[in-house]
Amino acid sequence: MLNLKVKPVKREYIDLAWMRLNNLTKPVRSLGMLEEIAARLVGIYENPMPEIKGKAVFVFASDHGVVEEGVSAYPKEVTAQMVFNFLRGGAGINVLARHAGASVVVVDVGVDYDFDDVEGLVKKKVVYGSRNMTKGPALTRDEALKCIQIGIDLVKEYHQKGYNLFATGDMGIGNTTPSAAVVSVITGRPVEEVTGRGTGIDDETYKRKIEVIKKSIEVNKPDPKDPIDVLSKVGGPEIASIAGVVLGCAELSVPVVIDGFISTAGALIAYALEPKVKDYMFAGHLSSESGHKAALAYMGLTPILDLNLRLGEGTGAVLAMTIIEAGLKIYREMATFEEAGVSKGSDQNNVSK
Amino acid sequence: MLNLKVKPVKREYIDLAWMRLNNLTKPVRSLGMLEEIAARLVGIYENPMPEIKGKAVFVFASDHGVVEEGVSAYPKEVTAQMVFNFLRGGAGINVLARHAGASVVVVDVGVDYDFDDVEGLVKKKVVYGSRNMTKGPALTRDEALKCIQIGIDLVKEYHQKGYNLFATGDMGIGNTTPSAAVVSVITGRPVEEVTGRGTGIDDETYKRKIEVIKKSIEVNKPDPKDPIDVLSKVGGPEIASIAGVVLGCAELSVPVVIDGFISTAGALIAYALEPKVKDYMFAGHLSSESGHKAALAYMGLTPILDLNLRLGEGTGAVLAMTIIEAGLKIYREMATFEEAGVSKGSDQNNVSK
Repeated sequence: MLNLKVKPVKREYIDLAWMRLNNLTKPVRSLGMLEEIAARLVGIYENPMPEIKGKAVFVFASDHGVVEEGVSAYPKEVTAQMVFNFLRGGAGINVLARHAGASVVVVDVGVDYDFDDVEGLVKKKVVYGSRNMTKGPALTRDEALKCIQIGIDLVKEYHQKGYNLFATGDMGIGNTTPSAAVVSVITGRPVEEVTGRGTGIDDETYKRKIEVIKKSIEVNKPDPKDPIDVLSKVGGPEIASIAGVVLGCAELSVPVVIDGFISTAGALIAYALEPKVKDYMFAGHLSSESGHKAALAYMGLTPILDLNLRLGEGTGAVLAMTIIEAGLKIYREMATFEEAGVSKGSDQNNVSK
Repeated sequence: MLNLKVKPVKREYIDLAWMRLNNLTKPVRSLGMLEEIAARLVGIYENPMPEIKGKAVFVFASDHGVVEEGVSAYPKEVTAQMVFNFLRGGAGINVLARHAGASVVVVDVGVDYDFDDVEGLVKKKVVYGSRNMTKGPALTRDEALKCIQIGIDLVKEYHQKGYNLFATGDMGIGNTTPSAAVVSVITGRPVEEVTGRGTGIDDETYKRKIEVIKKSIEVNKPDPKDPIDVLSKVGGPEIASIAGVVLGCAELSVPVVIDGFISTAGALIAYALEPKVKDYMFAGHLSSESGHKAALAYMGLTPILDLNLRLGEGTGAVLAMTIIEAGLKIYREMATFEEAGVSKGSDQNNVSK
């Protein structure tokens, strides 16, 4: 059903970027990850002097049937309440998106609440919450594909509006539970290792959460070779839409910044479907949610920030956008040795990539 | 000669900050270091709702007699050439300071070059380069104290102009050599452990650099209990002025963001003179220069960014300013549970600091 056309990033653009970077008035490679970011952007955009024209973060909201099992520190109602908080601009993602100059696009893909037509809310509800995955699949295959398509289509729409740097975000009480299940099945890591305390649960709830995830995997037997099977059986609507955003960005050759644990579960699904998406992804940050590190390592991604964040919503991703922009500005705005009349050093003789 | 009046940050302001932070619409502590930054700012400014009014980075430039010994990949002339690059806005610090909205204040404290009256250059030359420390003290005690005072006075001047967040920066070919010497003497760590490759020297030069540092310490016998003795014998002018900025900020109760290895050597001198300055310091980033980690650990500082930067100039510090501002915006702009009508979670019952 998904007909993916992702091309690999071209080496020649990246080489071109390093030629310029190595000629800027600084010791070779002395701006570390900022330079690597710039070189990757040149490759992704296939443009020797790229420009970030507009930034947006998609925050996909959904409920999860599995909260019936008592896996979260927060009541389910908070998902819809937080959607209203997003729309009023009072949530963490609103504050950090304003700081980064990014637009927040709030999308209902599966909240168990009937929203009126509210200014700013993108209504794309596929389900009124996923089903309790300890008793059967969280989503049907068709529902999962619909949620993916919503992500792909939103990227196309906003790209046409002129945006060319995207971030993924999530809101869904209980969603670290399906995310841990997805990460465990796709990476093959034990459930205990990839399950964290989400919003902040106590020891008893944490033990229950691990049992719930194990049971969900046992009951549904998701096939690790079939990412859509994993996504529908033990995933969730927002995880699917995030996978769609990653796929959509890769198809259009625009960079996408993934947020923490839930976003990375979505990114893992996209990566399992098409490993070439990796070239287009930036890992915004390393979440303090256990399991995130393993998920990023599985894809070979290095996080930009490490600030002990574990809020989700896209917060770490939009904050990382500010570092990504800084990297591009270094590339675009710094003077070369020749322009500045600065003598080169001996490190310039053994320039390596 | 230095009459330091630094007061400790008041616990009651920090407690006040955590009361608000724990009531914002997010799981307790889920914004990690951003929240810690906000709480520290409330404590430093002694203001329950502080505001960052103006940001400036001081870039102190100086030459070093020890470059005669062949310890750098770059010729000495580059120090003055880079000063001109700073004044024209083409260097890394200019690009990142523009990105962060910070003013760049370029200060000559010891460049071996006669600058005309150039727009934007603060002329405070104390020496035409430090002396070769393998043969005797790099600076006299009086010269070191003069350089410290320049840093203190600049903070006062810019604070009166309305700036209230400062960063430290440096430019000086060869200055990782005295910095490593200072770090080794103050922290007691072996020279080999705290000496890195600076701008990018080869194996042979690296071995020589270690020998040069060892010899400088042997010849001068700096007293680790007398920070000014260490600074003058094996330090340098810009390291001294950076120490002055840290002391000046602590005296005025304003935060200071320290940059990489050279700035941290300066901060170590300030810390050795008056440990209470720690309360006012933010470690902007972890440099890839070996020895930086040990120096930060000695003061108990946790770096905000870790991007493999090793350029100096204040680049990592101004980039970290954007994260510090993000932390304060979280504190100031996020809605509380009550304001947003969001239900609290069970994590709110066991709020801890």
